[in-house]
Amino acid sequence: MSKKGEHIYAWVKDLYPVNRSLSGDGVRQTLDYLKQLLPNLQIIEVPSGTKVFDWTVPEEWNIRDAYVKDECGTRVIDFQQSNLHVVGYSEPIDEMLELDELQKHLYSLQEQPDAIPYVTSYYKRHWGFCLSESDREALKLGTYHVKIDATLEPGSITYGELVLPGTSAKEILLSTYICHPSMANNELSGPCVAASVVQWLQGLESRRYTYRVLFLPETIGAITYLSQHLEEMKAKTVAGFVLSCLGDDRAYSYLASRFGNTLADKVAKHVLKHHAPDYQTYSYLERGSDERQYCSPGVDLPVCTLCRSKFGEYPEYHTSLDDLSLVSPSGLEGSYRLLEKCIIALEQNRNYRCLVPCEPQLGKRGLYPTLSTRETKAAVATMMDFLAYADGDHDLIDISERIGVALDELLPVVERLQNAGLLVIADAPGIECSGTR
Amino acid sequence: MSKKGEHIYAWVKDLYPVNRSLSGDGVRQTLDYLKQLLPNLQIIEVPSGTKVFDWTVPEEWNIRDAYVKDECGTRVIDFQQSNLHVVGYSEPIDEMLELDELQKHLYSLQEQPDAIPYVTSYYKRHWGFCLSESDREALKLGTYHVKIDATLEPGSITYGELVLPGTSAKEILLSTYICHPSMANNELSGPCVAASVVQWLQGLESRRYTYRVLFLPETIGAITYLSQHLEEMKAKTVAGFVLSCLGDDRAYSYLASRFGNTLADKVAKHVLKHHAPDYQTYSYLERGSDERQYCSPGVDLPVCTLCRSKFGEYPEYHTSLDDLSLVSPSGLEGSYRLLEKCIIALEQNRNYRCLVPCEPQLGKRGLYPTLSTRETKAAVATMMDFLAYADGDHDLIDISERIGVALDELLPVVERLQNAGLLVIADAPGIECSGTR
Amino acid sequence: MSKKGEHIYAWVKDLYPVNRSLSGDGVRQTLDYLKQLLPNLQIIEVPSGTKVFDWTVPEEWNIRDAYVKDECGTRVIDFQQSNLHVVGYSEPIDEMLELDELQKHLYSLQEQPDAIPYVTSYYKRHWGFCLSESDREALKLGTYHVKIDATLEPGSITYGELVLPGTSAKEILLSTYICHPSMANNELSGPCVAASVVQWLQGLESRRYTYRVLFLPETIGAITYLSQHLEEMKAKTVAGFVLSCLGDDRAYSYLASRFGNTLADKVAKHVLKHHAPDYQTYSYLERGSDERQYCSPGVDLPVCTLCRSKFGEYPEYHTSLDDLSLVSPSGLEGSYRLLEKCIIALEQNRNYRCLVPCEPQLGKRGLYPTLSTRETKAAVATMMDFLAYADGDHDLIDISERIGVALDELLPVVERLQNAGLLVIADAPGIECSGTR
Repeated sequence: MSKKGEHIYAWVKDLYPVNRSLSGDGVRQTLDYLKQLLPNLQIIEVPSGTKVFDWTVPEEWNIRDAYVKDECGTRVIDFQQSNLHVVGYSEPIDEMLELDELQKHLYSLQEQPDAIPYVTSYYKRHWGFCLSESDREALKLGTYHVKIDATLEPGSITYGELVLPGTSAKEILLSTYICHPSMANNELSGPCVAASVVQWLQGLESRRYTYRVLFLPETIGAITYLSQHLEEMKAKTVAGFVLSCLGDDRAYSYLASRFGNTLADKVAKHVLKHHAPDYQTYSYLERGSDERQYCSPGVDLPVCTLCRSKFGEYPEYHTSLDDLSLVSPSGLEGSYRLLEKCIIALEQNRNYRCLVPCEPQLGKRGLYPTLSTRETKAAVATMMDFLAYADGDHDLIDISERIGVALDELLPVVERLQNAGLLVIADAPGIECSGTR
Repeated sequence: MSKKGEHIYAWVKDLYPVNRSLSGDGVRQTLDYLKQLLPNLQIIEVPSGTKVFDWTVPEEWNIRDAYVKDECGTRVIDFQQSNLHVVGYSEPIDEMLELDELQKHLYSLQEQPDAIPYVTSYYKRHWGFCLSESDREALKLGTYHVKIDATLEPGSITYGELVLPGTSAKEILLSTYICHPSMANNELSGPCVAASVVQWLQGLESRRYTYRVLFLPETIGAITYLSQHLEEMKAKTVAGFVLSCLGDDRAYSYLASRFGNTLADKVAKHVLKHHAPDYQTYSYLERGSDERQYCSPGVDLPVCTLCRSKFGEYPEYHTSLDDLSLVSPSGLEGSYRLLEKCIIALEQNRNYRCLVPCEPQLGKRGLYPTLSTRETKAAVATMMDFLAYADGDHDLIDISERIGVALDELLPVVERLQNAGLLVIADAPGIECSGTR
Repeated sequence: MSKKGEHIYAWVKDLYPVNRSLSGDGVRQTLDYLKQLLPNLQIIEVPSGTKVFDWTVPEEWNIRDAYVKDECGTRVIDFQQSNLHVVGYSEPIDEMLELDELQKHLYSLQEQPDAIPYVTSYYKRHWGFCLSESDREALKLGTYHVKIDATLEPGSITYGELVLPGTSAKEILLSTYICHPSMANNELSGPCVAASVVQWLQGLESRRYTYRVLFLPETIGAITYLSQHLEEMKAKTVAGFVLSCLGDDRAYSYLASRFGNTLADKVAKHVLKHHAPDYQTYSYLERGSDERQYCSPGVDLPVCTLCRSKFGEYPEYHTSLDDLSLVSPSGLEGSYRLLEKCIIALEQNRNYRCLVPCEPQLGKRGLYPTLSTRETKAAVATMMDFLAYADGDHDLIDISERIGVALDELLPVVERLQNAGLLVIADAPGIECSGTR
């Protein structure tokens, strides 16, 4: 393992304490941090009340403090201890309440008595506190001082956008979200792995595709962004990935696009098969993140979702247990490598046509090994099998799947044949004209 | 169970004693009875000798009495006891015969010694008697008086036709037959369930499709009708069902169209999967009723066949054991319900397109439950899953199959979304232009 | 079994001693022998140095004698004993060598100690001897006289071509090779079975298709031939078979074309399923003979390969154990029959359309049996099932597969229906325009 995973882990750690939500200064603070890593990141504000398709940008929420004090003045629930203690988008309140009244505004999990659940109420005015079941059981009868020092008023939502131009105007989309308070796998693994991928992309000598990378509040952020860029994205996007829950060390997950048949799906499945053959497949019926918007009928972008333990499928999900101990440098680095491989696959996935009819004579070009070993035999077989399907109608992944050789292993073979003047690029017109199905 | 099954059963019982055949007064009597139930039924006569494609309408057969008397004058085989005793379309005869001569004209079943078999000889002049194997064994040596008081002479064949207009000129075909003597499952269940379905259709406030309902003598009736209406039916028919053997309480059967890929097949399989998941599937190679004509290469209508115990597949088939005890009100009502569901599915099966890009905001329309229970969660999931595929390219059954929710359960969801102004109808041009593959 | 297999076996026996190679007099001698069997065979010489696509025709090799003598003057390795003893295309040599020097030029098989391996070095100047592992172990230290009396100099390669015209200019290709020294299954079974098939084809009253039959040195011969006839063959070839290893009594093998979807594949699989249901299927990834050229992207002819024990898959392959005892009259005759059936299938495989809508009335044409037995019932079912799919869109093999009746059994039914005037030929335009996928 390189240092890559440790760097990403350090960013996750830095961003962990920040109190993010759908809007507000926690989001801005997070994007400012990312802009230090990615100076080209543009930070955009969209005012409350803006119509975005069927939705309206909500008011901005900021919170300074919140607690429930018992009769002795002890904070029995304290926002300073964990920002999960307050229901996201809670209205301000400052009242004295009897326990039975207070109970109506408390959320805990009977099945996970030590976990503070993560609860929000974005579109319905409400206030509430979350706490562990065991803390809840310890609450005694009496009068409590309930205070949420928050504002919920016209402002804006904030997102980050970064475009890395490539040789082609055709685009790869990477989308991740920055709207959850102190939780590590869901969500900080997503933006931090994405940032690391962008750093690597920036360092490449050349990029075939243009990259559009988005750091958005989930759902409303994606809808807002799409409402501003839909036609452009439909015209340009060749493939895209929603990045979420990428930090733990458990199996990888692939969540298919609406019909599971886009270039993004094809690349993700090919790479996972070789990189992490024990990965889990989820159908679009098990969707839950911004693929819901990108793949919706009126949008229909070629996007699938990549995770390690998928949202909603691991026990710590949406609780205080999704903390810094759940994610690891190796987990984060594995996800980074997966994405790197997916992007290399996309960049390299071309259609080639062999320039000579019949099999070429490899020997006269020094492409046939003089020493015949098991390894050289396999190498020749791969070369001949590739040539046998290099008809211009099939891309590298198609051929890779057909001849049973990972794209990784095929690329040096292609390079050698290209250097020998035996191949010409014959890309499918589809790739150059439209990224949608 | 409603009274529906009992009404249908009563009709079966009324029609049971009538001696039907390919032609003759029994057919007319049956159609007259059905016309009492369905006043719009048109009864049509087609003269013997009429050329109908590769066939010729045969002579008309009527029988008044028939028997075999022994030397004591006792009727040992008696048409008055069962109209199955006479081979259908027997020539008249009045002769004295020795037992060994008589034997050549007797039909019985060794494997079912108590059953009278059902035998016909429509296109080859012949006479014969059918009887149980046990009765046959009881016949003693001697001279028998054999008499069939029948006429086989120019006349006509008779069929019933009923057209229920709908909003569209596109048609659903229902076809059933009325040419078998006293047998209950094959055939009276077919026309009686069909009559009940027509009564229901007539009572509907509106019908999207036009319905063409045919009560025909099998094979020659379908060929005759097609020879008169082929081009019209090819232009208009969207889906059709041959209705046969619909009265017993055993499993349902679906017999596929020639390639199994018409709208009729799609609807039948979808409805059966949810209504009667233990149904049997038969390939077109196991065909036997009028699907043989409707699906023939030169006709090629989108028609499949629905049965309970399929013709040829149940032990009582084509014997006197297929009597009133084999069919039941519940068996008949089940078939009625199946057809009702198939027709509702056809009527409701449209392509819808969601009018907004991205997911719509259900909350502001009151479509999002305020109380979150397992049931409301499932309801929201169904609504969101439907919207996720409401792209105008897939009809309700496609979506239903994809999201794993029966069409039945999807319809109220669609209605709610339509009322909320979120959907527009975007029917496949195929449906409006042609019903064939 | 007829005498067919014995005739073919006798030819194999006659040709067995001849020392064939990629070029030289052994090839000419073999083609002269075949020309006695097939007087229309054209024998063509292509000079060394001719450019053929990516390749160049190599120099011609002829060998008169070769041996390794020990110090007593005894031939311890002797070309006169077996022409496999000399590495194919060995340069001439006449030297005294110590055993350790000699060893560098010896080839044997540790796993098969009694077999002489077959080794060649066509495109790299080299010399060598092959011997059994046990003979090799018996070699004593000492000085050996090594002599190869061969010439490797400008000349030509030689191939045989035979075209049998048919009613249509569309062609069936049969390709086999004649470049291996004394080995029986690989290769003499191939050209000898092919010769027998051609004799049968010549004797046919009429042929629908034109037949192009090639006897070539493998690889360079096919490339040379294609370089001279590519456009013509692309325009005309409907289906083709590479014939190799057809003489033993073990299972048949089918090696698919590049995508496994040509008419040749369809016919081969249909015939094998009924003729030899235990046949082995190999993917194009396991290719090895001239299908490598015929199916290459720039050539793309509809060709698959037929064998009994496939090259590379049986223990005797490419050794002296592939001798006259490995092949048999029955093995050769079985292969002959398989090819005969494939060709009959191709000749007969047409699209038919039934001329009447609905089912025809078979009775009035005497096509309906008066006696009903299990056999006549099956015959009528086959006839009706064929008619049910005779829609002009499906060829006989399609229908055969669908109704589960071998083409063999279908042909007389088709003939009877055609004689009755019920069918019209409605061939797919594809077959008449292009043989490629």
